[in-house]
Amino acid sequence: MTAFAHRAERVQPSAIREFLALAGDPRITSFAGGYPDPTLFPIEELHKIYDELLSAANASALQYAASDGLPELRALVAARLTADGMPCVADDVLITQGGQQGLDLSAKLFIDAGDVIVTERPTFLGALIAFNPCEPDYRSVPMDEEGLDTDALEEVLRTTDRVKLIYVVPDYQNPTGRTMSLPRRRRLVELAEEHDVVIIEDTPYRELRYEGERLPTIKSLDTTGRVIHLGSFSKILAPGLRLGWALATPEIREKLALLKLGADTQNGTLNMRAAAAYLSGFDIEQHIAGMLPTYRHKRDLMLATMAEHFPPGITWTRAQGGLFTWVTFPQRLDVAAFQRDVLIPRSGVIVVPGTPFFSERPEANHARMSFSGVPDERLVAGVRAMGDLLREVLA
Amino acid sequence: MTAFAHRAERVQPSAIREFLALAGDPRITSFAGGYPDPTLFPIEELHKIYDELLSAANASALQYAASDGLPELRALVAARLTADGMPCVADDVLITQGGQQGLDLSAKLFIDAGDVIVTERPTFLGALIAFNPCEPDYRSVPMDEEGLDTDALEEVLRTTDRVKLIYVVPDYQNPTGRTMSLPRRRRLVELAEEHDVVIIEDTPYRELRYEGERLPTIKSLDTTGRVIHLGSFSKILAPGLRLGWALATPEIREKLALLKLGADTQNGTLNMRAAAAYLSGFDIEQHIAGMLPTYRHKRDLMLATMAEHFPPGITWTRAQGGLFTWVTFPQRLDVAAFQRDVLIPRSGVIVVPGTPFFSERPEANHARMSFSGVPDERLVAGVRAMGDLLREVLA
Repeated sequence: MTAFAHRAERVQPSAIREFLALAGDPRITSFAGGYPDPTLFPIEELHKIYDELLSAANASALQYAASDGLPELRALVAARLTADGMPCVADDVLITQGGQQGLDLSAKLFIDAGDVIVTERPTFLGALIAFNPCEPDYRSVPMDEEGLDTDALEEVLRTTDRVKLIYVVPDYQNPTGRTMSLPRRRRLVELAEEHDVVIIEDTPYRELRYEGERLPTIKSLDTTGRVIHLGSFSKILAPGLRLGWALATPEIREKLALLKLGADTQNGTLNMRAAAAYLSGFDIEQHIAGMLPTYRHKRDLMLATMAEHFPPGITWTRAQGGLFTWVTFPQRLDVAAFQRDVLIPRSGVIVVPGTPFFSERPEANHARMSFSGVPDERLVAGVRAMGDLLREVLA
Repeated sequence: MTAFAHRAERVQPSAIREFLALAGDPRITSFAGGYPDPTLFPIEELHKIYDELLSAANASALQYAASDGLPELRALVAARLTADGMPCVADDVLITQGGQQGLDLSAKLFIDAGDVIVTERPTFLGALIAFNPCEPDYRSVPMDEEGLDTDALEEVLRTTDRVKLIYVVPDYQNPTGRTMSLPRRRRLVELAEEHDVVIIEDTPYRELRYEGERLPTIKSLDTTGRVIHLGSFSKILAPGLRLGWALATPEIREKLALLKLGADTQNGTLNMRAAAAYLSGFDIEQHIAGMLPTYRHKRDLMLATMAEHFPPGITWTRAQGGLFTWVTFPQRLDVAAFQRDVLIPRSGVIVVPGTPFFSERPEANHARMSFSGVPDERLVAGVRAMGDLLREVLA
């Protein structure tokens, strides 16, 4: 049979996809997905909005629209980005099919086979899935409590040919929950300039901040137009609408828009109309502020339960925002095997084993755990059951 | 500044994108876009559906869902494809972001730079935009009233190395409106088998049939699993929902699904739920049948008005379905220049000049005209004004 393209070798089933399938099973307690809490969706407001949009006078809400996104939605997103320290106008913004599409388009624009993408270590596995079809090589840079280690980054940039992109999630990173400090952000931009590299700043969790100060985005520190800033409505409005955005210089944005046109013509008109109506008719800042206590509580509950029930020798991050904690087990524990052989069969709990979050040289003794999607009682029971099983296997 | 990837050279502004922008101007009479008639959208039914979906009990309609599409929607699409002579089940179907995404994913799966895609001559320009980032070479095969000339195709396949894909729109082709005859469909499948090539069968217009018999799809003639069948809800339900599908063998479908996961995670959950509710709660066959007289009337009106008002030496196709007629002018007429210098400034009419519909060796003396999106009176006035101006410039 006709051979696939060379890139197809890089397109393999991912851990997260299998877990998303399992997560639909009501017997499973899933700490795997990065799902927002559905009880926090502004469903009444959206109900009202779709009701108004789907009147006969509004048939245009079901028609084709401009491929780079509805102008009114782009203007409203630009206003929010401006308020967040990134002065811009509607024409600077591209609406994307969630934040994920911004990753696919950015890689398409910059990466030839064999070009290098530098990632955090660990990094968002969905980004690797988006980048892989462009056949990049990867280098990964360690993180500490201040995020990406910029000294280590400097060494990588100094010693590596063909680095085209640096991919970072500076706010409440997926999977570690870590925040990149302001000095590191500044140093990252300096290094990108020195080495003429483009930065992809991915910010899906930026507005889910439970403590600590709001740090400037990397894009806001960028004076040479080398940062592509990606954002998403998935965590602040609803993921089922599949809406995100990309902010970049006109030259880059125009090429991303053309790639988007070829990839899927446009985002759904109805959902773009709805998001615009939500932003103009309701107070999204208040909505976001209203969600934070719930997530903060869930984070605290998960971390406290882990502290109480996990055996010694296990560490985890304390995220100031976002949805995740990154758990590190003794080196001898292979989390994927533990999950398959013990955790799922005996407790029905799932996490995401850490291996696929490494762009190179994977480590098997980590897990990403999300505290957002599970009701309190199940969360506590699940973490406790996991602790009991860990005690047993690590004894 | 950091260099773009090599493929970016193939990503250039397209004619259709500029026209879609112009088409929003109320002073313009647009025969350019392939827009369905918005007065035919089942907006009352969709209103009812979204109203029910957006109740608090249905927050899951706003949540993440499986990346290859909601199982219930895939099952409903599979049932319709089965009824159309392509026996399949839900697991054989991938939900895509409109038909366009199926083109992007298929090229990603099969095309390395320098591989050859064979297209009809002319072909859908949106497909070329989807394919171009994979850096294919193209060969184009002439058409006649029976569609793709399979003798010419045989010659191309015999004399060309690295042919991986043949892209066809067999039903009411975009841009010509032509239908591929049954003997040609059979011969196409034979030739693809002989030369071990994959066929992409793109069918967005298949169900808009105004006359003639329903021919078997190419997929239904495929015994070796080498046809990727693409379809879309854009013309039978509403384009603003961005929903389409791909039907392929398990091996191909699985790879397309993984590429989709990387490209945009998933389609919008809410819109997939709505489409599933529409298919299960309403009679889409009756809805489609109800649209046909309007489109048939519009086609007849445009062709009759052209016959009355266009000067001699101009020919056009008579489509048995779909949205388009392909107009061929005397060789000396450059349609793009005529449109820019005469047609738009003096009549406010726009068409799509034919050049970008050629995957190689473009011809400048054609235009694609859509009869679907313009009210009758404006349609007649626009065609008449165009005829008057053509008389003048061709005199």
